Amino acid sequence: MTAPDCLFCKIIQGQIPCIRIFEDDATLVFMDIMPQSDGHMLVVPKQHGANIWDIDQPSAMAIMTVGQRLSLVAKNALQAAGVSLMQLNGAAAGQTVFHVHLHIIPRWAGSDLRMHAREQADRIKLVAIAEKIKAGL
Amino acid sequence: MTAPDCLFCKIIQGQIPCIRIFEDDATLVFMDIMPQSDGHMLVVPKQHGANIWDIDQPSAMAIMTVGQRLSLVAKNALQAAGVSLMQLNGAAAGQTVFHVHLHIIPRWAGSDLRMHAREQADRIKLVAIAEKIKAGL
Repeated sequence: MTAPDCLFCKIIQGQIPCIRIFEDDATLVFMDIMPQSDGHMLVVPKQHGANIWDIDQPSAMAIMTVGQRLSLVAKNALQAAGVSLMQLNGAAAGQTVFHVHLHIIPRWAGSDLRMHAREQADRIKLVAIAEKIKAGL
Repeated sequence: MTAPDCLFCKIIQGQIPCIRIFEDDATLVFMDIMPQSDGHMLVVPKQHGANIWDIDQPSAMAIMTVGQRLSLVAKNALQAAGVSLMQLNGAAAGQTVFHVHLHIIPRWAGSDLRMHAREQADRIKLVAIAEKIKAGL
């Protein structure tokens, strides 16, 4: 179920902290600390697998239904114009952590995405955004 | 279930042709005619909804489980290094057809994505790629 030396397994197990948004039996949702937009979250299945085809079908369904719900919550809470859902498999696709994750990226008209995994966001700002999102759950 | 004047509803109903890859009760998968990479497919729920939060939970689960299966099929069939799954909601997120769709975009190391919805691919080449993918189903 979990893999040694996997950053996201350690976050799921509470060995590494995160700014937590939501959790259920199959998934954990937390803030991306190098966000591509304000409100960028990751939906992570508790079942370890590097790629989408490495997890079972219930885990894949779980990240999508949580993504469906949380994207609307974030859109409303942050008054976003839209939401990009992205799930990247393989370094060639831009994947940087090799445990499946679904990106929820709120979008606003005319604002391009920041580069992923380049710049760490201010923690106080991240927590403030997280609180807004959680208030909408 | 369907919406008038919706391009994807017309494709689902067979009123507009597509290069079909897969179909089940809840989804239709066909080639994107303005692909961002070779093998770019769209998984479309038969239930009409503009955004991911406008379709019901079974439809959201269906596009993801089909995406999970088809991304591995395409990766193997086309010997891709990875696969990007993208589901864009709202013009601000880059959505151009307002019926939910999940992009399956095979990726190769060192090749950037082409711009979406700019250039129409050669139909003979698209059909050849589609045949390779279908052979892996």
